[in-house]
Amino acid sequence: MTSAGYRFLWLLKMLILIVGLGVVLFMFGSVSLQAEFRSLKPEPPGSPLGVQVLKLLPEERLRNLFTYDGIWLFPKNQCKCETTEEQRSYNFQDAYDQSDLPAVKARRQAEFEHFQRREGLPRPPPLLAQPNLPFGYPVHGVEVMPLHTIPIPGLQFEGPDAPVYEVTLTASLGTLNTLADIPDSVVQGRGQKQLTISTSDRKLLKFILQHVTYTSSGYQHHMVDMVSMESKSSVAKFPVTIRHPVIPRLYDPGPERKLRDLVTIATKTFLRPHKLMIMLQSIREYYPDLTVIVADDSKKPLDIKDSHVEYYTMPFRKGWFAGRNLAISQVTTKYVLWVDDDFFFNDKTKIEVLVDVLEKTELDMVGGSVQRNAFQFKLLLEQSENGDCLHKRTGSFQPLEGFPGCVVTSGVANFFLAHTERLQRVGFDPRLQRVAHSEFFIDGLGSLLVGSCPDVMIGHQSRSPAVDSDLAALEKIYSTYRTNTNAQIQFKLALHYFKNHLECTQEGTQKKH
Amino acid sequence: MTSAGYRFLWLLKMLILIVGLGVVLFMFGSVSLQAEFRSLKPEPPGSPLGVQVLKLLPEERLRNLFTYDGIWLFPKNQCKCETTEEQRSYNFQDAYDQSDLPAVKARRQAEFEHFQRREGLPRPPPLLAQPNLPFGYPVHGVEVMPLHTIPIPGLQFEGPDAPVYEVTLTASLGTLNTLADIPDSVVQGRGQKQLTISTSDRKLLKFILQHVTYTSSGYQHHMVDMVSMESKSSVAKFPVTIRHPVIPRLYDPGPERKLRDLVTIATKTFLRPHKLMIMLQSIREYYPDLTVIVADDSKKPLDIKDSHVEYYTMPFRKGWFAGRNLAISQVTTKYVLWVDDDFFFNDKTKIEVLVDVLEKTELDMVGGSVQRNAFQFKLLLEQSENGDCLHKRTGSFQPLEGFPGCVVTSGVANFFLAHTERLQRVGFDPRLQRVAHSEFFIDGLGSLLVGSCPDVMIGHQSRSPAVDSDLAALEKIYSTYRTNTNAQIQFKLALHYFKNHLECTQEGTQKKH
Repeated sequence: MTSAGYRFLWLLKMLILIVGLGVVLFMFGSVSLQAEFRSLKPEPPGSPLGVQVLKLLPEERLRNLFTYDGIWLFPKNQCKCETTEEQRSYNFQDAYDQSDLPAVKARRQAEFEHFQRREGLPRPPPLLAQPNLPFGYPVHGVEVMPLHTIPIPGLQFEGPDAPVYEVTLTASLGTLNTLADIPDSVVQGRGQKQLTISTSDRKLLKFILQHVTYTSSGYQHHMVDMVSMESKSSVAKFPVTIRHPVIPRLYDPGPERKLRDLVTIATKTFLRPHKLMIMLQSIREYYPDLTVIVADDSKKPLDIKDSHVEYYTMPFRKGWFAGRNLAISQVTTKYVLWVDDDFFFNDKTKIEVLVDVLEKTELDMVGGSVQRNAFQFKLLLEQSENGDCLHKRTGSFQPLEGFPGCVVTSGVANFFLAHTERLQRVGFDPRLQRVAHSEFFIDGLGSLLVGSCPDVMIGHQSRSPAVDSDLAALEKIYSTYRTNTNAQIQFKLALHYFKNHLECTQEGTQKKH
Repeated sequence: MTSAGYRFLWLLKMLILIVGLGVVLFMFGSVSLQAEFRSLKPEPPGSPLGVQVLKLLPEERLRNLFTYDGIWLFPKNQCKCETTEEQRSYNFQDAYDQSDLPAVKARRQAEFEHFQRREGLPRPPPLLAQPNLPFGYPVHGVEVMPLHTIPIPGLQFEGPDAPVYEVTLTASLGTLNTLADIPDSVVQGRGQKQLTISTSDRKLLKFILQHVTYTSSGYQHHMVDMVSMESKSSVAKFPVTIRHPVIPRLYDPGPERKLRDLVTIATKTFLRPHKLMIMLQSIREYYPDLTVIVADDSKKPLDIKDSHVEYYTMPFRKGWFAGRNLAISQVTTKYVLWVDDDFFFNDKTKIEVLVDVLEKTELDMVGGSVQRNAFQFKLLLEQSENGDCLHKRTGSFQPLEGFPGCVVTSGVANFFLAHTERLQRVGFDPRLQRVAHSEFFIDGLGSLLVGSCPDVMIGHQSRSPAVDSDLAALEKIYSTYRTNTNAQIQFKLALHYFKNHLECTQEGTQKKH
């Protein structure tokens, strides 16, 4: 070999050595100028103040941060209802005999689990995305109807270049496909639970991913399928929700939007025909043609001569909430106005104002004042495994947007306008035969968004005994049914324990928060 | 300078040149041996078959892929209901006078939009995650109750090393905080809508992120807050759903699980007292103490001497579905068994079997056979902007898991056991006064999961006219009410158009799919 040849070989060896060294130097140089002069060990830069101790805020600090109306609305093992100066509390278990309690608890747990299964609860734990995954995918919001097909948006693969790209998608409650027109050698598993794309063409991979479809198999109402997307050792998961939309139940207000086609008045009466008639007459002074539905569980039926009254009789003393549920079950208009049989309409009883509020907001119902009392109260729920804690406070949550003078709350008086379809969905529990009020709003928790406009008022007939002796006697009988006996109180507490899966309740006045 | 010095300088220049060249060669060399010999232009390797044309499958192929029972269940602009040999179709607009149609459409659109707003629809478009983001975050499943606080799981930052790390989280329907006990110099905006973390300590950043909390401000029932997480120019978004759970409505079956405490029978009668009495007597042969609720809109009330019958009267001819809605509104047990007043119980009418099916599955209701006919039908919905298309097919979707002989379907006969609370939630529309059946199941779409167990049977009383002349006369009057007049048909079609936001329907026999 010539001397130039030897020199070339030597240069080649130097090249390899230098390239190696150059790469190492290059990598460190790219971090920062400062890093070049540091030690080669990858130690994280310390805080200028020294190392920070990692600790959490103590519980008293947390309680101050996340308290509303004196209630700590933060996840905890078991909620509690405490009796203080301002608040009374009831433990619902006290409504049962100690000896019955274990069996009651077991039955309640069994019923609760059955309920949960039908509601698709508990929901699966949150799905967490890992950082630096080479995938694009839909994080939230992909929904498909049972048996339907949808394209999955946003699927991407941005991994490093490779001679061949292999991406696999896997579903469990449905099958996968792609709208791309390509041979089976590139995509396998079309119409199956696992779709595998295998190509060396990056543009083709992108195109296929842009047009992947999901077809839900089987008829179910609410499930969440976790679809996974993998390539080499990287895996991303995203949810596809299988849900059947609830079909609308709309009411035609008619071309003239007459109040008669929009609103039905509903009431229930028992042993108070004289008060009912006064109430009806007062309605007719202001609203001569609105339909009034009357549910009556008195001993003898009435003969009401009013062509716009619909009259229903029930078994004697069947009950207060049974009658309320009956009355609302007969309404054929978009809205229903509830009134008690001992109210009376006056010139402040403006149904049109309440209609306007419901038409223009997302509220399900809006109450007015009875005399001057709006009877507003808030309900706050803490969920726990052994039963939830229900906190009741007077007052409201916040003003109602667009309606100064109106507020958002949880409960109102028995003078309210409601979306018929929403009110029927919750209903009045016919097991509540005598005294009951807040139970309806508790049953409506999570279902009914409630407002209150205290400026819309209805009168309350005098509570003084009737002059007429027959009527006075009837009123006396009636009042015996209004007495909240101990047995009835125990019954209602037990009902809250079992029906609503509650542990206890705490009632008090509004605290500043 | 010496010649060795010059040579050294020349070597240094060569070094820099070679290192540069070596780095370039090294990068290409790391791809594959093959790549070293290729051109230096970064052209993606082509498929051995040549470049693939990017095109989608033609529509006929797509239709074959995503068709169920002859219906193409794939997103489209406007669905259609076609009349073929096997299927009839109805366009619901035909029920209106042409001159009224524009006003009707406008009213329906206004009512539909109001309904959508109250349901939180339409849902926001899917949130898409970008690839290679240096963040970890919860993709799906983080829920918070209104006014409550929750920790946000899975927040991570895995970006490149830096002297200072700055990560900003931003919410809009709630405020952010962290449970980490650290000074305000590190975290700013605690309890505000924007939280900024600024530290050079990577472990501290990790700790703070692990304990970020979200507090929902304001009382609302269903909203989705898009929370963003950013650092330098990288942004990730994830959803936090503000939702109030629906409070449970459970029924205590009692320590002995007596059928009387689990099931109430409900029926409606009109001008058929003789048939009603035969039906009641047949119930008592097999179930002497089950409560039977009877809603009656005949002219004259009956006197039913049965201490377990609850009897309700209604305005004369108020109607079929009004009566059904009334009857179910009075039920106080977990389950309600619906029967028509002209059925009769026999030894195949095993209520216990139906109870077992509902206790062990997620079905909301399960029907049996009347005589030998199960009257099963499926409903498939295609949603479109101008109104949905409803397809009706006989048969079922799939077998019911755990119950051979039972199936999942959409509609059944008027002999079914249902969860009272679920049935009341849907209800029977009192606007349907005369002939109606499938309307109930259509109203239940998306709300009721329906099954059918044809082996549980009830008898149907003979349709031959009564021998007794008075009864025969009554039956004649009754049958006039059962005639589906043209006016009533038009009324029901218009009701589907407006109430259910439907465009058309298509009914046919089951196709193979």
